[in-house]
Amino acid sequence: MRAAIAGASGYAGGEILRLLLSHPDIEIGALTAASSAGTPLGAHHPHLAPLAGRVLLDTTPGTLAGHDVVFLALPHGQSAAVAAGLGDGTLVVDCGADFRLADPTAWEHFYGGAHAGTWPYGLPELPGHRDPLRTATRIAVPGCYPTAVTLAMFPAFAAGLAEPDLVVVAASGTSGAGRSPKPNLLGSEVMGSATAYAAGGVHRHTPEMEQNLSPLAGAPVRVSFTPVLAPMSRGILATCTAPAKPGVTPRALRETYEAAVKDEPFLRLLPEGQWPATSMTLGANTAALQVALDERAGRVVAVVAIDNLTKGTAGGAIQSANLALGLPEETGLPLNGVAP
Amino acid sequence: MRAAIAGASGYAGGEILRLLLSHPDIEIGALTAASSAGTPLGAHHPHLAPLAGRVLLDTTPGTLAGHDVVFLALPHGQSAAVAAGLGDGTLVVDCGADFRLADPTAWEHFYGGAHAGTWPYGLPELPGHRDPLRTATRIAVPGCYPTAVTLAMFPAFAAGLAEPDLVVVAASGTSGAGRSPKPNLLGSEVMGSATAYAAGGVHRHTPEMEQNLSPLAGAPVRVSFTPVLAPMSRGILATCTAPAKPGVTPRALRETYEAAVKDEPFLRLLPEGQWPATSMTLGANTAALQVALDERAGRVVAVVAIDNLTKGTAGGAIQSANLALGLPEETGLPLNGVAP
Amino acid sequence: MRAAIAGASGYAGGEILRLLLSHPDIEIGALTAASSAGTPLGAHHPHLAPLAGRVLLDTTPGTLAGHDVVFLALPHGQSAAVAAGLGDGTLVVDCGADFRLADPTAWEHFYGGAHAGTWPYGLPELPGHRDPLRTATRIAVPGCYPTAVTLAMFPAFAAGLAEPDLVVVAASGTSGAGRSPKPNLLGSEVMGSATAYAAGGVHRHTPEMEQNLSPLAGAPVRVSFTPVLAPMSRGILATCTAPAKPGVTPRALRETYEAAVKDEPFLRLLPEGQWPATSMTLGANTAALQVALDERAGRVVAVVAIDNLTKGTAGGAIQSANLALGLPEETGLPLNGVAP
Amino acid sequence: MRAAIAGASGYAGGEILRLLLSHPDIEIGALTAASSAGTPLGAHHPHLAPLAGRVLLDTTPGTLAGHDVVFLALPHGQSAAVAAGLGDGTLVVDCGADFRLADPTAWEHFYGGAHAGTWPYGLPELPGHRDPLRTATRIAVPGCYPTAVTLAMFPAFAAGLAEPDLVVVAASGTSGAGRSPKPNLLGSEVMGSATAYAAGGVHRHTPEMEQNLSPLAGAPVRVSFTPVLAPMSRGILATCTAPAKPGVTPRALRETYEAAVKDEPFLRLLPEGQWPATSMTLGANTAALQVALDERAGRVVAVVAIDNLTKGTAGGAIQSANLALGLPEETGLPLNGVAP
Repeated sequence: MRAAIAGASGYAGGEILRLLLSHPDIEIGALTAASSAGTPLGAHHPHLAPLAGRVLLDTTPGTLAGHDVVFLALPHGQSAAVAAGLGDGTLVVDCGADFRLADPTAWEHFYGGAHAGTWPYGLPELPGHRDPLRTATRIAVPGCYPTAVTLAMFPAFAAGLAEPDLVVVAASGTSGAGRSPKPNLLGSEVMGSATAYAAGGVHRHTPEMEQNLSPLAGAPVRVSFTPVLAPMSRGILATCTAPAKPGVTPRALRETYEAAVKDEPFLRLLPEGQWPATSMTLGANTAALQVALDERAGRVVAVVAIDNLTKGTAGGAIQSANLALGLPEETGLPLNGVAP
Repeated sequence: MRAAIAGASGYAGGEILRLLLSHPDIEIGALTAASSAGTPLGAHHPHLAPLAGRVLLDTTPGTLAGHDVVFLALPHGQSAAVAAGLGDGTLVVDCGADFRLADPTAWEHFYGGAHAGTWPYGLPELPGHRDPLRTATRIAVPGCYPTAVTLAMFPAFAAGLAEPDLVVVAASGTSGAGRSPKPNLLGSEVMGSATAYAAGGVHRHTPEMEQNLSPLAGAPVRVSFTPVLAPMSRGILATCTAPAKPGVTPRALRETYEAAVKDEPFLRLLPEGQWPATSMTLGANTAALQVALDERAGRVVAVVAIDNLTKGTAGGAIQSANLALGLPEETGLPLNGVAP
Repeated sequence: MRAAIAGASGYAGGEILRLLLSHPDIEIGALTAASSAGTPLGAHHPHLAPLAGRVLLDTTPGTLAGHDVVFLALPHGQSAAVAAGLGDGTLVVDCGADFRLADPTAWEHFYGGAHAGTWPYGLPELPGHRDPLRTATRIAVPGCYPTAVTLAMFPAFAAGLAEPDLVVVAASGTSGAGRSPKPNLLGSEVMGSATAYAAGGVHRHTPEMEQNLSPLAGAPVRVSFTPVLAPMSRGILATCTAPAKPGVTPRALRETYEAAVKDEPFLRLLPEGQWPATSMTLGANTAALQVALDERAGRVVAVVAIDNLTKGTAGGAIQSANLALGLPEETGLPLNGVAP
Repeated sequence: MRAAIAGASGYAGGEILRLLLSHPDIEIGALTAASSAGTPLGAHHPHLAPLAGRVLLDTTPGTLAGHDVVFLALPHGQSAAVAAGLGDGTLVVDCGADFRLADPTAWEHFYGGAHAGTWPYGLPELPGHRDPLRTATRIAVPGCYPTAVTLAMFPAFAAGLAEPDLVVVAASGTSGAGRSPKPNLLGSEVMGSATAYAAGGVHRHTPEMEQNLSPLAGAPVRVSFTPVLAPMSRGILATCTAPAKPGVTPRALRETYEAAVKDEPFLRLLPEGQWPATSMTLGANTAALQVALDERAGRVVAVVAIDNLTKGTAGGAIQSANLALGLPEETGLPLNGVAP
C-alpha cells in the first residue's frame, strides 16, 4: 500500500514519516507542502536520512491522487477542500481539527467559522469506536490533549466511579504548538520555564474532551482544562481529577483500570505507586496510566503520559489507518519509549 | 547585623547566601554543614565567587552562636535541637518543615514522629501574618508549594468567591527536591520529561495548604494536590481551581485580586490575558499571578509562578527575617526575574 | 544620570534594562523599538515588573535625545545613522557589530557592505583598553564570543606562552541568536540537541578575535572557530587551545593567569582542577576561567564561561559605560551567578 | 538466538534492551545486575513496557551461561572475570573499557591497574576492522567519544589530508556519565548549563582515539581532547580539527568523505552547508557528518553527531555482534533519529 502525506514539512508530517519508514505494509508516496513545496525534505526533517533527497510537491488533488491512504497534516480549515478531491477509494486520515466535533455550536464557539462535518473518530480505545474504524474511509484523528485525557478517564466514567466534573491540568512539550515560528516558542523563552496558556476555559480541545466522556458518564461532563507549556520537545503529562462517587474503593478503582487496559495493546497501567513520566513513552504509541483514590479529598486522580506527536497525533493516525486498511492495529507502531 | 547559615552546602543554603551577598544590612557570618564540614564553599556553590574560599564549619551551637540571625536549612527533624541551643536574643529562621504545622495529628500523619511545635509562620502576605512576624524570634518558613498555592488562592477564599474544594496541580523544578543525589533526579532522567509524583493525596505539603486557607474560607478546605517534576532547575507553576460561589462575576474576581496585591511588594497580578511563566520570577522574590473565571465549568482558575528557591524558600526566609529584624520588608530582595 | 535604550524589546535590550533597574546611578529614560513601538514593555519582558507598563517609542533622534547615555541594541547596520543624530555630549554605547572592526577589508569580507568606522572597544580587561574608555563618547561593545575567547586567551598570548594558532569551539545558549523567530531556534528544535553552525571559518566573530589577540601575540593569530548551539537559554562555554611555546611549564601558565586576573573585578580564575560551568555566571558579569597545560599534546587549554547576555553584551556595555561616565567600573553589575 | 545482558539496570544495558526488543533474530534471555538483583526491570527502565516484570538476576557465570551472545555493561575492571566463565562458544561483547587498548602503558597511565588484554575492536567502519569481527568470539565496544571522533576523522587521515595534530572538543549528553547518582549529574546542576570536565589531556578516551587514527595517518596522532557536559540526556557533538596538509582543496576533502561513507549503512554525510545536530541521530545508530576546509585558518574541520547510547554504545555493540553472529550488519538497528 502507498501513502501520501500532505503537510509533510511540519512536525506531525515528520512524525508520520518517521513511523511509516518502519511500517512493513505501507510505502511512502507523495510528500506535499504549501510554502515549502520545491524544497528537499532533508531541509525540514534531517533526522529522516532515507528521505532527505525527496522533493516536496504542492498540495493538490493531483499530487495526492493514486494512493491507498492520504494523511492530512494541514492547518485547521484546509482539510475539507483537499478531501473533496479524493474519492472514497482513498482512505483520508485528517490530523487536523476540522472533522472531530459533532456539535456545530461547539465548533463555532471554539473555532469560529462554518462546521465542516464529522468523520469517524480515530481513538480505537474509546468504547464503541474501534469497529466503525474498520470500515471507515475518512478518519478524524483526535487532538493530542483529548487523546491523553480520554484515555486517562474513560474507565472511571464508563464504570460510574466519578462525578461528571473533571479538572485537567496538562503539561505539554512545545512540539504540540507546531513549527510556525512565534516568539513565545523560541528555545530562549521556553527552556527553563513552565507557563500556563489558554487557561480559564478557552482552549479548543475542551469540547472534544466533553464529547468523548459525556456519553460514558451518562451525563454532561464539565471540563476545566488548563494547558501548561513545559520545557521539553515532546510529551503530554495530564493530571485528571474528578470527585469520586460515593462508596468507591481503591480496589474497585484499580480493578476497573486493570480491566480497561487488559486487551489494549497501547494502554499500560503502571504498577501501584509508580507514576507516569513522559520519557516512558517518548517516540512510542503507548499511553502510560496510573490512578489513585485520594480519600482525604474524595477524588479520583488519574495521570497519563503520552508522546503528543506519536500516540497524540501520528501514531494514533496510523493506528486507526491500520484498522481501516485491514491490517493488525499495532503494525509498525513502537511500544517502547526512548529513554533516558 | 550578622547571619549564620546552617546547612550552607545545600540549595536552600546557597540561595540564602546568594541573596545575602546583596543585602545591605546583613553580613555573612558562620557557614556550617554536616558531612561537608571542612570543605570550601566554592566546592559546593561555585557561582558565589566572593565566598569560594570560606570553609564550612560543623553545625553546632558553638559555631552558630553570636549571630543576630541564624538560618536553618537542615533535613526535617533536626531544627529543634539546633534551635534549643540558641537563645531568644537570636532570631532563628527555619527553612525546614518542623515548625510549620499547628495540628500534631496532621504532622504525625504526613511526617511521622513527634510534633516539634509551631512557630510564627513566615508568609507576610497571608492575612493576619505580617504583624506577628515583626516581634518574632522564631520563624517557620513555609514550604515552597504552600507558598505558591496560598498566594494564588487567599484572595478568592478570603473574599468568599470560591467553594472550599481546591484542586492543585503544580509543576516544580528539580531543585525543590534538594541536592542529595538520587537516581530519579539525575539530569539524564529529568531532562526532556515531566513526571507526576506523590500523587493521590500523600504529599506532605497538603495539610499546610489546608491550614493556610481554611481560616479564610471559614470552612475546612479540601485540597487535592498533584505535584509534577518538570525539566527545569527552578520554578513552581501552580494551577489552582475551585468551584466558583454562585453569582461570582469575572469583574468581581479581578477586582478582588487587584485589591489583594495592591500593597504587596512581591505580589504581581499580570494584565488580563497574560498567564504566569516561571521565567518571569527566576531568582526573584516575586509571585506572578493571574486569575480567571471559567464560566462553562463554573470554576475559579488561579495560576501562580514563583521561584521555589527564592520566594519559595530563601527569599521568603529573608523577607520574614527583615520584618523580625526591624528592616524594610523588601531589603535585599530582587524583584525582577532573570530572563530569557 | 539617565539612559535611553534603543531596541528595548530584544534580548540585549531587556538585559540592559534588568541590570539598570539595580544600578544606583543611572535611571531609565526612553525605551524605543521598531515594529514593537506602541506596545507596552511588559508584552516583551514580563520579568521586568517595574517597567511593565512603559510604552515603547519609535527609535528616532528625537526620542533618544536628552539622555546622558544611549544604549543601542539594533540590528547590524543601523547604529551609524542613529548615532549621527546624537551629539558628543551623549555617550553612545553600541551593542551591535558596526564599529567593532578596525580593518575595512575584514568588515567587508564577513559582514558585507560599507565599513561604518571604528569606536573605542569596550573590553576593559584587554590590555591597553581601559584607559581610552574613560574618555570615550562612543563605545563599541564586543561580540559575545570574542569577549569570551579574548578573556580566556589574552594572558597566554600577552606572556608569550602560546603559538598564534588558536582553535576555539564554543557552546552558546540560544539567546545569542536573538529574538527574531526562526524555525531553527524553536524550542522544539533546540531542546535536547546540540548543533554546530557557521563552522569552517565563516562566523563573523572570527576577525574580531584575531584583532584582539594578534597585537598581544606579536604576530597574526589564526583562529579556527566553531560555534555550537547548546540547549540552554544563556551562557557561552568556550574551549580555546593553542600550541604551547617551548619550555612552558604548568606553573608558569598558572602564575601568568593568576597575575592577569588579580586586579580584575570580573575575572575569576577557578581553583586548579575545577572547570568552568556556565551556571557559575548566569546573570552575572563575571567570567570564570581555567587553564591547563596538556603536556601530551603540547597545548595550552583555556576554558571560559560567561553569560552571553550579561558579560557578553549588556553587562559589558554597562561596565564600559560606567568608565566613560566616571563611575566605579563595577557599579550595578552582579558578581554572582544564579544557580542551580 | 538468545542474548543475556549483564548490567541490565544501567543506561547501556537499558539501551541494548530497547534495541533488542526490535531485533528480529535475537531474543532476550537472562538479565543480570549487581545491587539491583532481585528487583523488576520496570523499576529501572519503565520505558521498556514488555520487560517491566522481568526480575534481575545476579551476575554470575551460571546466570549468563547458555546464551549465544552475552552483552557486558559493567563497571571497568569487572569484564575479564565474567568473560572467563563463558566459553568460546558464547560471543561476549564488552561495552566497558577493559579490552579496548592495545598498549598496556597507555592503559596503566589512564586507567591504572593491570591491563586485561585486547579484544577485536567493534568499529566496523574503521578500515580493516570489519572482517575480523565476522569471526570474533570476543568484542570490545569502542568508547562513545572515540566512536564519534574516529568516524569524523578516519577519512581525512586515511587519505593523507590532515596533519597528525588533532584538536577535539565534544559536547556530550549526561547519560554518557552513567546512572550512579553523583551531585554534579543532578538535573538541577546540569539543566541550563554547559561545563567542561577532564580537560587538559586527562580524559581516558584520549589514547583510544590515538590508537584508532595513528595507523591511518602513518604517524602518531596527537590528540587534544576537551569533553563538555551539555544539558541534554543523549548525544555527542564532536568538533574535530587538524591542520590541512599542503594543497588540500575543498573539493578533494568533500570527495574523500563522500567515498568514505558511500557503502557504510550508518555513516551519513550531510549536504554541503548543513551541520550535524544530535537530534538527527537520537535513538538511531547513525553518525551524521559534515566536513569543511577552513582556508583562512588552514584546517580541516569535521563535525559529527551520534547518540552516545546508540551508535556510541549499545547500537555499536549490536552492529558488531550482528557481524560476529553471521547476521546482516544493519539488523534491528534504527537509521532515523527521533526528532524534534
